[in-house]
Amino acid sequence: CASVSKGAFNTVVAVFLSTGLGREYALAFAERGASVVVNDLGADTKGGGRSSAAADKVVEEIRAKGGKAVANYDSVEDGEKLIQSVLDAFGKIVSNVGLYAGSTPQCFKRILSFFFVFTSDLIHRVHLRGSFLVTRAAWNHMKKQKFGRIIMTTSAAGIYGNFGQANYSAAKLGMLGLANTLAIEGLKYNIFCNTIAPVAGSRLTETVMPPDLVMSLKPEYVAPLVLWLCHEQCQENGGLFEVGAGWIGKLRWERTQGQTVRQKNKPMTPEAVRDQWDKICDFTDATKPASIQESLQSVVSVLSRVESEGEVNGNPTA
Amino acid sequence: CASVSKGAFNTVVAVFLSTGLGREYALAFAERGASVVVNDLGADTKGGGRSSAAADKVVEEIRAKGGKAVANYDSVEDGEKLIQSVLDAFGKIVSNVGLYAGSTPQCFKRILSFFFVFTSDLIHRVHLRGSFLVTRAAWNHMKKQKFGRIIMTTSAAGIYGNFGQANYSAAKLGMLGLANTLAIEGLKYNIFCNTIAPVAGSRLTETVMPPDLVMSLKPEYVAPLVLWLCHEQCQENGGLFEVGAGWIGKLRWERTQGQTVRQKNKPMTPEAVRDQWDKICDFTDATKPASIQESLQSVVSVLSRVESEGEVNGNPTA
Ligand SMILES: NC(=O)c1ccc[n+]([C@@H]2O[C@H](COP(=O)([O-])OP(=O)(O)OC[C@H]3O[C@@H](n4cnc5c(N)ncnc54)[C@H](O)[C@@H]3O)[C@@H](O)[C@H]2O)c1
Ligand SMILES: NC(=O)c1ccc[n+]([C@@H]2O[C@H](COP(=O)([O-])OP(=O)(O)OC[C@H]3O[C@@H](n4cnc5c(N)ncnc54)[C@H](O)[C@@H]3O)[C@@H](O)[C@H]2O)c1
Repeated sequence: CASVSKGAFNTVVAVFLSTGLGREYALAFAERGASVVVNDLGADTKGGGRSSAAADKVVEEIRAKGGKAVANYDSVEDGEKLIQSVLDAFGKIVSNVGLYAGSTPQCFKRILSFFFVFTSDLIHRVHLRGSFLVTRAAWNHMKKQKFGRIIMTTSAAGIYGNFGQANYSAAKLGMLGLANTLAIEGLKYNIFCNTIAPVAGSRLTETVMPPDLVMSLKPEYVAPLVLWLCHEQCQENGGLFEVGAGWIGKLRWERTQGQTVRQKNKPMTPEAVRDQWDKICDFTDATKPASIQESLQSVVSVLSRVESEGEVNGNPTA
Repeated sequence: CASVSKGAFNTVVAVFLSTGLGREYALAFAERGASVVVNDLGADTKGGGRSSAAADKVVEEIRAKGGKAVANYDSVEDGEKLIQSVLDAFGKIVSNVGLYAGSTPQCFKRILSFFFVFTSDLIHRVHLRGSFLVTRAAWNHMKKQKFGRIIMTTSAAGIYGNFGQANYSAAKLGMLGLANTLAIEGLKYNIFCNTIAPVAGSRLTETVMPPDLVMSLKPEYVAPLVLWLCHEQCQENGGLFEVGAGWIGKLRWERTQGQTVRQKNKPMTPEAVRDQWDKICDFTDATKPASIQESLQSVVSVLSRVESEGEVNGNPTA
């Protein structure tokens, strides 16, 4: 079983943030032999401001330890420019590029009304569109070299919802939707796309978590997952992981057997839906559809069942 | 057990599309006593063009059957204007508003490269931002009247990913993220938000499905679910449903027990992640976390476990 240790990443890794989690990723990749492009536009926690200090500091840290790193200060909204700078810096000397695409949040504070969050387009521009733009700019290069690893950073706020974070949860779950399709499109080019929902103490979470929790939930308990998912030996693709405190769990959809609520040659009614509601929502013997094909197939199978049986109780099999 | 039948919806329903699924919803609501605002800007399948014919036609159909309906031709991007027109038309005579927010797709065709889809902002503007804007405009009115029902229309393409639909799947899963948070924020005002992933033959799907399937997967096999979810007796909130052909199933997340991959006072490594990968991905005894609190709690519990046991094998309980 091969090692993920020093020298294993003879790759260029672009890390799209330099404080909190991003700093940790950059350091961990560099320690294992990756050439790192540290991108950060140096925004404050509200997404405003610009400074080269954040990225520079991490680059200095890496170089002081003998690692290879360059800084980049573009916004993730300038995807093309950003990826070009990765190529300019290391493009001629590398065999493959592991890309970490995890754009950044602007505002994680609890907000009393969701209207406030709604009015800000910044979250969508940076998280969702930023991830789009960076990935698109890198995609053709990854395709050509037949290798790529993309990590999208979603959030439990998107997966489960969170009070005051309507906008953030929409943008973050949108990134998962994007990842779901990229995983399918990239497969034959050895481009894998996985999604993580981290929990880590950072300047982002210090406003919503008790101080000792912020201290204990170290970003270095998240970085090893990102490194493994970016490794060429890792064959995981299209996965969703929650990670924090040194623990990692995987998520997937489960679906009820559900219920067919119409009969042959009769109109389907809301009353029938209401009357079968418990059945519709009963997770006994739930299935785990893993693709749109599986999903569609089970819906389509209902058609012939209703025609032949004329029954209300025909359930599709997944 | 009360009836959902004629007269049960003494409400105003705004239906945000008038062909395909939207037409079916409008007719079904009107038949059961709702006053319907049929909104449609009359776009072609690519999202271009404008015509009042689409909405007018459905309004005529409803009126011919003795129902109450008015047309509106604003884009869902003009959320405020649209909701104002709902209030202007029926605002003084209704006790509550059931809102159907399901903005529309621009392009469901298989596209060979995802870059093409990426370059179009239209999908995001209409689906994701359109749903935002309409919902925001309606929110305060729903809050005041202490009643609201919101249905977001996502897609299996977002839930599972689909080749050629990177942009669409991102926008559509973003709507689920939005719904997840709205369900939490609306709860105490009796505003419920559910999400459906329909499969129905329409001008959208006729390009990707065989003709007989398009004919068989009738939009009227979807509408009864929407009616029931909009009914004041329905207490479902924050749910996600796949629906088509007369069958309805419910989805939720399941999560592996996962694995703690670090030991007390030792650095966490990618090697440890790799070596525990099977455990991390093993869905035996999977949990079903239902909220961000449950999710966070299980991560936090790892901290004390590692400190006390110093073990690699402590799993969190959900
Ligand atoms: N920390 C957590 O518990 C947590 C939980 C869920 C998700 N996340 C996600 O993880 C990622 C990192 O979060 P963090 O906690 O390390 O935050 P952080 O605030 O410490 O780091 C964010 C960094 O992004 C940079 N940035 C902001 N806008 C940018 C832009 N347009 N272009 C380039 N860089 C930009 C900032 O300058 C900052 O250095 C985010 O995507 C966040 O949503 C974090
Ligand atoms: N049909 C399916 O199998 C299926 C599957 C998954 C999701 N959906 C979703 O269901 C919804 C309806 O789909 P359909 O199949 O009935 O499509 P359709 O093309 O028949 O109807 C879409 C309608 O939306 C209108 N529209 C477009 N842009 C608009 C705007 N900016 N403002 C207001 N109206 C606008 C169009 O004029 C058209 O009448 C969409 O959100 C779609 O993504 C449908």
